[in-house]
Amino acid sequence: MSVPASAVPAFDFTSRLSRRAQTMSASAIREILKVTQRPDVISFAGGLPAPELFPLEDVRRAADAVLTRYGPAALQYSTTEGHPPLREWIAARHGIPAANVQITTGSQQALDLLGKVLIDEGDTVLVEAPTYLGALQSFQPYLPTYQEIPTDDEGIDVDALEALLARTSVKVMYVIPNFQNPTGRTLSLDRRRRLVEITARHGVPVIEDDPYGQLTFTGETYPSLYELGLERAGGVEGNHVIYCSSFSKTLVPGLRDAWVQAASPVILKLITAKQGADLHTPTLNQMIITELLPILPRQVDVVKKAYGERAAFMISRLEAEFPEGVAFTRPKGGMFLWVTVPGDIDTTPLLARAVERKVAYVPGSPFFAHGGGKNTMRLSYTSATPDQIREGIHALAGTLRDALA
Amino acid sequence: MSVPASAVPAFDFTSRLSRRAQTMSASAIREILKVTQRPDVISFAGGLPAPELFPLEDVRRAADAVLTRYGPAALQYSTTEGHPPLREWIAARHGIPAANVQITTGSQQALDLLGKVLIDEGDTVLVEAPTYLGALQSFQPYLPTYQEIPTDDEGIDVDALEALLARTSVKVMYVIPNFQNPTGRTLSLDRRRRLVEITARHGVPVIEDDPYGQLTFTGETYPSLYELGLERAGGVEGNHVIYCSSFSKTLVPGLRDAWVQAASPVILKLITAKQGADLHTPTLNQMIITELLPILPRQVDVVKKAYGERAAFMISRLEAEFPEGVAFTRPKGGMFLWVTVPGDIDTTPLLARAVERKVAYVPGSPFFAHGGGKNTMRLSYTSATPDQIREGIHALAGTLRDALA
Repeated sequence: MSVPASAVPAFDFTSRLSRRAQTMSASAIREILKVTQRPDVISFAGGLPAPELFPLEDVRRAADAVLTRYGPAALQYSTTEGHPPLREWIAARHGIPAANVQITTGSQQALDLLGKVLIDEGDTVLVEAPTYLGALQSFQPYLPTYQEIPTDDEGIDVDALEALLARTSVKVMYVIPNFQNPTGRTLSLDRRRRLVEITARHGVPVIEDDPYGQLTFTGETYPSLYELGLERAGGVEGNHVIYCSSFSKTLVPGLRDAWVQAASPVILKLITAKQGADLHTPTLNQMIITELLPILPRQVDVVKKAYGERAAFMISRLEAEFPEGVAFTRPKGGMFLWVTVPGDIDTTPLLARAVERKVAYVPGSPFFAHGGGKNTMRLSYTSATPDQIREGIHALAGTLRDALA
Repeated sequence: MSVPASAVPAFDFTSRLSRRAQTMSASAIREILKVTQRPDVISFAGGLPAPELFPLEDVRRAADAVLTRYGPAALQYSTTEGHPPLREWIAARHGIPAANVQITTGSQQALDLLGKVLIDEGDTVLVEAPTYLGALQSFQPYLPTYQEIPTDDEGIDVDALEALLARTSVKVMYVIPNFQNPTGRTLSLDRRRRLVEITARHGVPVIEDDPYGQLTFTGETYPSLYELGLERAGGVEGNHVIYCSSFSKTLVPGLRDAWVQAASPVILKLITAKQGADLHTPTLNQMIITELLPILPRQVDVVKKAYGERAAFMISRLEAEFPEGVAFTRPKGGMFLWVTVPGDIDTTPLLARAVERKVAYVPGSPFFAHGGGKNTMRLSYTSATPDQIREGIHALAGTLRDALA
């Protein structure tokens, strides 16, 4: 049966949408990125892990192995909490009980479910300025009020945080301490300790989002807020930090496997929320990820070496080519760096000029809860070849020089 | 690092939970089902598809084939809307544009996202009495008010629906027309037409949940509400019916692949909501399902033949063994049948007696939005052998006879 689309009066769904749906708009970034997907454009806009590094043959073998080992159970419904061996492996890393781990369908689901169980309309949620755009999208349906905390090269400004907590009632704080998306910055150890101390003292739960922590270029790592919270509280149930991480940036993203670790009252509500949200993360996928755990250290080495080289090369080209007055971060891990151009340049309209020169980036503004940062942009170095980096940064430098002239 | 759990003051997360989280309780059924998972108990309680019918080797070949054909793209992030060939195949079945199809991580996610974009706190949602427990769980976080519509052997009572719509402002209606979960009943053709007509006239969107429609034992099928809505409106955008279906009951459940088809304003909001909820349904899984589409008709034949035989045998044993005064449905498809015992027997406490006799069922009460139906139970025949059906129904009949005595 084929029906003509024209001349049919549309049903008025728009007036039936929930209030929250009316606040949800297709991400600006998503629309922008569509233009940048032309094959002749060198794009530093995407945030995709480098596909040529994916352990494709290992995944093939793992899929085959788990289908043999588990048979139809690999394709059956499974428990909401997650595949027990995967939960146990995750729990063992921090010496916590597996009962404090919930598997999620990507970190994005972790953020959605945490928003669902924690945020009431109008609740104040603290975020970094800038922060991960996708977190803002996950929380938005629960209609929070955002308070932005300024950041600098050491990450979130803890003095500003302390001042704000002294005068504002805050429901929850969201922070990405390692190689932050979008800035590539890392929260310093001293600030980590103070952040954990201050938020604990004010009774403010902290959602720590850590997809990139293992991808350190220098080998240097800091304890997670979760670990500091565990140490401070003396145990899992006293820890006010909720930790989210993922296999998307270390193994593969398309299987959608991530997790949350937290105190029991949070996990118990996440289980119920997840039952209603998707019953469980796909069974086969969790089994494949579990099967790949032995190659995780090798895979992390491969990825961090490649990204480290690409970041270093991009930074060297930025140093060589970018005009005076343009600043950029020098990330020690992760997937992104952050460019700040002089204040009178707006990077959103500038993108059209860049695309004319066959290069693309993400304008920084959507990463600010209150829409600041008009003179910023995010560059990803993860999936570009040296030639693309050389050529793309040359074109972007030209775009910036024109804008500055 | 291992930390002692004892003697640590717990962080007070409970007082930080959202209001909606406070209304979300671990499903009663889930707790009940734990008791019934003892290997010595014959369980008619689960709602699991029969795993021995899964096309395990086809899945293995499909996984291998798509990893070869798509390479790393099978493991990369992909679009929120879904794998294009899968959307196109689904759209073609109803002759609608692929743009009107959204892939979801199981039907459960479809219900969650539809709740998110349609339901405001206090909105009236119409549901059948009884209805799918999981839908109640999906909608609950959006804090609706449920109005129940009575049902009989032809499905929902359309006169009662009409009377209710005449006096109540209703936001959305949720209905499972084919081989309903939990009753196994099918909405008659005449009532389908009237339901579509009445709800359209009152401007009430209808969510049609159809996971079981293909599993017809008799070959008889009715047009879906979606098809009737399409016919009535003359096109996709005028159709007030939102259709959800799934590959979980026909191919395999553990890959979590399902879909929604609806008018554009709904799909556009679902895309945004899904971006925040899990970015996209796992890439590899959608490709595997697409690769399996050629075997879908064969697989549907296998499943409906097996379930049809199991249903017929269970019904024959119920007829032979159940005491006078106990009624049950005779489903013509799907996975469940519904038992009504005399009104003074409560099937929830009775379950303990049944488990003593090594048989389990699901008490019917949780399937009622307002908790009625204490004298009902759901039985699944999908994964039981003839011996288990014979023995289990004998034990259940004994339990009922004791209760009636």
